[in-house]
Amino acid sequence: MKQINIKDLAKSLGISKSTVSRAFRDNSDIKPETKVRILAAAEELGYRPNLYASNLRGAKGKTIAIIIPEFGNNFFSQAIKGIEEQARAKGYYTLIFVTDDDVEKESTFIKELCNGRVEGVLMSASGEGKKHNYLRLLKERNIPLVFFDRYYEDVEAPVVTGNDYESSYAATKHLLDLGCKRPAYLVVDKNISIGKIRMQGYCDALKDAGIDMLQELIIECGNDKGQIYRVLKKSFAKLRPDGIFASVERLAMPMIRICHEEQVAIPEQLKIICFSCLEFADMLNPALSTVQQPAMEMGRTAAQILFELLQGNRKDDEPQIILLPSKLIPQKSTIG
Amino acid sequence: MKQINIKDLAKSLGISKSTVSRAFRDNSDIKPETKVRILAAAEELGYRPNLYASNLRGAKGKTIAIIIPEFGNNFFSQAIKGIEEQARAKGYYTLIFVTDDDVEKESTFIKELCNGRVEGVLMSASGEGKKHNYLRLLKERNIPLVFFDRYYEDVEAPVVTGNDYESSYAATKHLLDLGCKRPAYLVVDKNISIGKIRMQGYCDALKDAGIDMLQELIIECGNDKGQIYRVLKKSFAKLRPDGIFASVERLAMPMIRICHEEQVAIPEQLKIICFSCLEFADMLNPALSTVQQPAMEMGRTAAQILFELLQGNRKDDEPQIILLPSKLIPQKSTIG
Repeated sequence: MKQINIKDLAKSLGISKSTVSRAFRDNSDIKPETKVRILAAAEELGYRPNLYASNLRGAKGKTIAIIIPEFGNNFFSQAIKGIEEQARAKGYYTLIFVTDDDVEKESTFIKELCNGRVEGVLMSASGEGKKHNYLRLLKERNIPLVFFDRYYEDVEAPVVTGNDYESSYAATKHLLDLGCKRPAYLVVDKNISIGKIRMQGYCDALKDAGIDMLQELIIECGNDKGQIYRVLKKSFAKLRPDGIFASVERLAMPMIRICHEEQVAIPEQLKIICFSCLEFADMLNPALSTVQQPAMEMGRTAAQILFELLQGNRKDDEPQIILLPSKLIPQKSTIG
Repeated sequence: MKQINIKDLAKSLGISKSTVSRAFRDNSDIKPETKVRILAAAEELGYRPNLYASNLRGAKGKTIAIIIPEFGNNFFSQAIKGIEEQARAKGYYTLIFVTDDDVEKESTFIKELCNGRVEGVLMSASGEGKKHNYLRLLKERNIPLVFFDRYYEDVEAPVVTGNDYESSYAATKHLLDLGCKRPAYLVVDKNISIGKIRMQGYCDALKDAGIDMLQELIIECGNDKGQIYRVLKKSFAKLRPDGIFASVERLAMPMIRICHEEQVAIPEQLKIICFSCLEFADMLNPALSTVQQPAMEMGRTAAQILFELLQGNRKDDEPQIILLPSKLIPQKSTIG
């Protein structure tokens, strides 16, 4: 015989599922006679309230957390679409937490999550050069963690990220091949792993081309919008680079704006390329050359690994770091 | 004497806080002798595990949910920034749920949230023309709801939204003043409240200018990216409007792309204006005329109302609908 569910029970009584659910909770506002009627029907039809109670608590058992450093960034929007696609296929909810690139907030969220709220965590890291002891809590509670995009080298967990070294090398070489002699590298924070890896690609491409790498052309812009603009404006005036390789899109956009303001011709006087998942990079003025990461695929893959871990299906010898290749898309901002 | 907290207790025992916390939970994996040691120390030092237990449950008491129809839209990104700013000032966490404009998912989320997960809900509605009985659950559970941007007319709850009628009227009049005779109105779904209200502004501006409103120039584009492109391409070829007023940014962008592809000159042959919170609308090719909503302010205000409701500070005679004015920003895509 088919196990009766709450829907069947509610239907048989001609009442809502939520009323049935209330009958099985102690502190609910429900008429005593209604409660008696529901409990009697449940007994008669063989409805197992325990099953339902566990389904109620199931909120915990069916949720994964996504922790990201920033909101409203095309990369993360697309990565989250990839994650949600997988999560929904598996019947999981997702909770999204935004840290504003603040490792303290990340730590607070993790501690919060350890209070039994989620089964697994997908995270893009917010800050390095700090201690990440709080992530041990996840291990203690048996909550698997998978990094996507940005990760901590000192934390043992699977990582799905871009082939950032290779694509940064290729982007820098693209500038050099087009004649740049003094390309600058723009980074938010040198201490975040992706910032470092992308910088290494930049440095090595210069070296292989026989060009001396100048420390001053590695420009650390910070996170605040006003600050980024001021740093770029000042650095550009002082250093006059002939190329820009921006490690994230939001550093390239104000650079383009400064060129508009100061009537610097792109690409004649300054060639610009950046990591970006902007869907309409080709509709900008000028169309922007990009290194396009497979953001959705990255989210999808990270989620798949998390579900393997949750289901105990992941083999011990699976690789810990998975690199997904980015695509260099030349447009007017470099090739004219 | 200072009330001892979990940190003090852990420190006095030379163990981690998480180990202490596990001692107070029944089903935790902790060595019996460690548990005994912790409980004894707690007794001795006057540590109140109840306080901690309620802090554990406090996860519920300190969280609000944000339900939005889509992710990676500039309006929602900024609105969420406004909400998070307020939530953090009040010490609340936020959980973000994305419905993909699917009213079924919205309903599922709401039911999920009613399982005691959050204290309050901020929501931008996903679909009209459906029954919204599931929202009654929130009221039954005493979980306040505040709408921002998109709302349901049949649900009683405070609403913070834009002055969409006035700004749509103004955007349409802007096109007419510049000489448009056949401006089209682009909408995702006529049945969503903002779509309807914005359409009314468009219709009334035409009427007041003595121009007949043509049903065929109200173009319903749907939600799928491929579909939007096809609908726009086909409609443009057939109807040849001389102006476009797009109710959301993601309908204007493919229209600009089609103009690029078909070498339609903007604004000479087609003037384009749209609702948008794109930060670099002025850096597009051509710079895009926009109706800019105060997205962050909208999120901030909605959150403030929710906290008033949660704290019982909101007066009964406060307005149920708060309209925040948008700003019309003319750029090259209309004025050349």
